[in-house]
Amino acid sequence: MPELRKDPIVGRWVIISTDRSKRPQDFVRESVTLKGGFCPFCYGNESKTPPEVLAYRPNGSGRDTSNWTVRVVPNKFPALGIEGTLNRQAEGMFDRMNGIGAHEVVIETPDHNATLAMLPEKRIEDVMWAFRDRILDLKKDKRFKYILIFKNHGAAAGATLEHSHGQLIALPIVPKYVVEEIEGAKQYFLYKERCVFCDIIRQETEAKTRIVAENNAFLTVAPYAPRFPFETWILPRKHESAFENSSSEVYENLAKALKNLLIRADQVLENPSYNLVIHTAPVQEAPMDHYHWHIEFMPRLTKTAGFEWGSGFYQNPTPPEEAAKYLRETRIQAPQPVVAK
Amino acid sequence: MPELRKDPIVGRWVIISTDRSKRPQDFVRESVTLKGGFCPFCYGNESKTPPEVLAYRPNGSGRDTSNWTVRVVPNKFPALGIEGTLNRQAEGMFDRMNGIGAHEVVIETPDHNATLAMLPEKRIEDVMWAFRDRILDLKKDKRFKYILIFKNHGAAAGATLEHSHGQLIALPIVPKYVVEEIEGAKQYFLYKERCVFCDIIRQETEAKTRIVAENNAFLTVAPYAPRFPFETWILPRKHESAFENSSSEVYENLAKALKNLLIRADQVLENPSYNLVIHTAPVQEAPMDHYHWHIEFMPRLTKTAGFEWGSGFYQNPTPPEEAAKYLRETRIQAPQPVVAK
Repeated sequence: MPELRKDPIVGRWVIISTDRSKRPQDFVRESVTLKGGFCPFCYGNESKTPPEVLAYRPNGSGRDTSNWTVRVVPNKFPALGIEGTLNRQAEGMFDRMNGIGAHEVVIETPDHNATLAMLPEKRIEDVMWAFRDRILDLKKDKRFKYILIFKNHGAAAGATLEHSHGQLIALPIVPKYVVEEIEGAKQYFLYKERCVFCDIIRQETEAKTRIVAENNAFLTVAPYAPRFPFETWILPRKHESAFENSSSEVYENLAKALKNLLIRADQVLENPSYNLVIHTAPVQEAPMDHYHWHIEFMPRLTKTAGFEWGSGFYQNPTPPEEAAKYLRETRIQAPQPVVAK
Repeated sequence: MPELRKDPIVGRWVIISTDRSKRPQDFVRESVTLKGGFCPFCYGNESKTPPEVLAYRPNGSGRDTSNWTVRVVPNKFPALGIEGTLNRQAEGMFDRMNGIGAHEVVIETPDHNATLAMLPEKRIEDVMWAFRDRILDLKKDKRFKYILIFKNHGAAAGATLEHSHGQLIALPIVPKYVVEEIEGAKQYFLYKERCVFCDIIRQETEAKTRIVAENNAFLTVAPYAPRFPFETWILPRKHESAFENSSSEVYENLAKALKNLLIRADQVLENPSYNLVIHTAPVQEAPMDHYHWHIEFMPRLTKTAGFEWGSGFYQNPTPPEEAAKYLRETRIQAPQPVVAK
């Protein structure tokens, strides 16, 4: 008998298949491989990107030259434009505004053949610091209400350049999904006077069945009602609504937790494409007792699920308890680059 | 300058690219082609499906034999089970219930090489009647709160069998997306005392810029804030919240409108994969003044958009005015089957 489960934050029911649940090897896997060729994100090609807005240069090299470790540049083909006013207006019954925003690329490493999973923990931590630095800078611009941070890894996840990078989009509105998540968490708080994410951390720590990994500051867990097979969340143990307000100890542990999860996923799912999204509070709002920032990791295992977009109705072929078990029990080995033959 | 537009029903902001807007030929198109081989939906293979729950047999042939025009069978691999009780229960802070529901397949034609677009209008109308008949039967079962009707056409849209078919899933809950759409429409009604869909029909009819086609009973239109390029809605002119409560004249005109749109899309987008979803009211509720059933058609043109799932943030590379113009101005020709070489 399949099971219907409800996400406790947004209230979405999901079908979890239990009879013929899919194991990692049951998915048609398209491992992410590297093809090489000219790359604007490699050393020596700094002039092929727009001028950098941030770079970590341990050797003190000059702006837009090589020898950086992390480099942030505006997206050459931005989804939104940085200049101008919002100019909110009506078009009859409809509403629109100018597409004002920032769209930046965080080049996570100069090494074309490295994935985020392969970077040393310290380098992953630097990527987190780069996100934070950019948020702190961009939130000074009061036009921006939300800063979306995400990573598409592999073509199946929407990556158009294979050199490892994350993205940041500053928006003049708060995306609907974020509003729903925060509103859902607020309803829970109004009823229980506790943060729903803190409650999840407590219950999952006790139940153990959905835990993938844990460290001092983070719990890595398969959510109770995941939309996608092997969807995994990384939750900070300490309550905090905004990613950018964390302490250095938190980023250090986040880098560890993230590397750990990515290696496990690469091993169990054979270098899958994935999307990774940082869920964090809107940047112009006061700290929230009811919201709790976290990372959601979604490997792209099912080739097609277009229909779900139109219906909001999800069917997940792998129970999270089984997904967590596979990820938890794999023996960690150092990841290797996968180069196309 | 890109534009941010707000969907007037659910309140979702979407980025519409205007600078480098994508034309039909700019998408990497994977035309749907037929491969043939054994097919459980063809004449003579009726015993390879579960026993039929409905079939139209103009020549009065026997149950589970050939000579039907439309045939409805339970899905051999159902997402939900039909037997049992819901048994709603808690798991600590989480909620679940048994996966009770019905999952049926509507085989739209005995002709393996025909697409829905190629069927005579009368046959498409029969498919609509089959959906209606099944809804009327299934809604007698009070465990079912919502009946989801959809069609995946082509592998990129999630179709696993190529023989043209639709699907029906009866659910013990109302999907989140439906709840949001109905709640959004209700808010509009509370404020304006008018149906938001009726207002859209009025404004679009006057503006003309987003109209794809129209007939006496339906308006086919690109929505103001579409998530996907060439997304198109078919709206009944007469207010009615439930698909199954329509008159025979409505189904007749719906078949015409649907065939017309599918042919246009096949011509402009070269036989794209698509998802089609009937948006209709929950089956156990009284008629609603604020909700208006309709069809949403989403061609799958962008290969990957996995990231949008995690963020609820959509970027559409084709303004709906341009998409509508392409679809409106194509000259209708009789569609031909596309068989793989």
